[in-house]
Amino acid sequence: MSGFVSFVSAGPGDPELLTLKAAARLRAADVVLYDDLASGPILEHARKDARLVSVGKRAGRPSARQAHVSRLLVDYAGTGAAVVRLKSGDAGIFGRLEEELDALRAAGVGYEIVPGVTAASAAAAASGLPLTRRHTARRLQFITGADVNGELPEDLNWIALADPSATTAVYMGKRTFPALAARLIAQGMSPDTPALLAESIGHADQTFMRATIGQLAERLAQESVAATALILYGALAGKEP
Amino acid sequence: MSGFVSFVSAGPGDPELLTLKAAARLRAADVVLYDDLASGPILEHARKDARLVSVGKRAGRPSARQAHVSRLLVDYAGTGAAVVRLKSGDAGIFGRLEEELDALRAAGVGYEIVPGVTAASAAAAASGLPLTRRHTARRLQFITGADVNGELPEDLNWIALADPSATTAVYMGKRTFPALAARLIAQGMSPDTPALLAESIGHADQTFMRATIGQLAERLAQESVAATALILYGALAGKEP
Repeated sequence: MSGFVSFVSAGPGDPELLTLKAAARLRAADVVLYDDLASGPILEHARKDARLVSVGKRAGRPSARQAHVSRLLVDYAGTGAAVVRLKSGDAGIFGRLEEELDALRAAGVGYEIVPGVTAASAAAAASGLPLTRRHTARRLQFITGADVNGELPEDLNWIALADPSATTAVYMGKRTFPALAARLIAQGMSPDTPALLAESIGHADQTFMRATIGQLAERLAQESVAATALILYGALAGKEP
Repeated sequence: MSGFVSFVSAGPGDPELLTLKAAARLRAADVVLYDDLASGPILEHARKDARLVSVGKRAGRPSARQAHVSRLLVDYAGTGAAVVRLKSGDAGIFGRLEEELDALRAAGVGYEIVPGVTAASAAAAASGLPLTRRHTARRLQFITGADVNGELPEDLNWIALADPSATTAVYMGKRTFPALAARLIAQGMSPDTPALLAESIGHADQTFMRATIGQLAERLAQESVAATALILYGALAGKEP
């Protein structure tokens, strides 16, 4: 009797951006482990008798929480259950799957990854922009603005990131953006490079702010809140929709 | 009487990777313009009386074909129709929306972009890998291996692309990969950097080949076919699932 774990991408927030496959996996699940993403309408795809387990608010160090989630996955799968591990956005992009995948492999539990719509695609689409454009935005790159401790990672490739002909999407980077912008400008990127701040993507209260990287850094340095947001910068971010 | 155009992302091929929103837009469409992607099961979401227009096989120069598609979009919207422009993958990533968006803006036609699952997410998921990993794969980048003429673009950022700590996804790059790999190696990237070739992603006959960038370049230099494929390279591409 062996269970199976499906890492299911929940998409960027809008329940309509769930894939058909993700909805099918939720319908078939005996157990669903979810983070404290705003997943209410998404969890409604699960059966009434499915066990819904929130793993997002457990206190303690991230590593302890992660070990707990991995153990739950292995334990539930060990009962023969069809387990869904719900992840926001595309599970493969900054979804921090590695510990959970390693634990399942070590325990010999089968798994699959169901890909989904990542926040950058949703943010660009909602503001009427493509993420790439022939000639002027040929490279698209994604980074996270926060390491395990919430700080700007030190060892990023600044030449790659200060390239104005790329479109760059910064995940979890609102709080550290002033530091990121300072590094980009020190690397030679113009402070006038267009930027777009997208908040609450895919939700009814989503907002977009167009600025330059210099203006956005100044603005965010004043803010104390650590809301989830996605920042796009590069020539394309300045296109009017 | 004004129509509306929805640019709908069809996802990477697997009809189950369509989003709920994309399926809803197809059901509501009066007209669907589609490329010659393998979209059979996806088009089945459209109503029986919807007009399905293939725009993928028109002969002639790409620019003439593009102008034709833009004209069709404006003309159909002008009849008051709900128009779906179906694009493979995520429409915003190498979907070449710019001319069509420009034409709609010039004609004052309203539009939306429905984001979707891009091929890189699907290829990684199908091979059991995430695209990012803390510490070792912090940056994810997407490029196209073919410019308008099918050649490797000359003005790519080689420092960004030769970074072994990034995961790089190369779209439409099978034919030009030997030239790309040569540039990466000349830039100092190890020929032993892991690579993954994914073909027919999301289809029943999907295949994966694990290699190094050096081996893959050698292999692809022998091939004459120009099949659609996605190539991933970087440290993560070498992880065993």
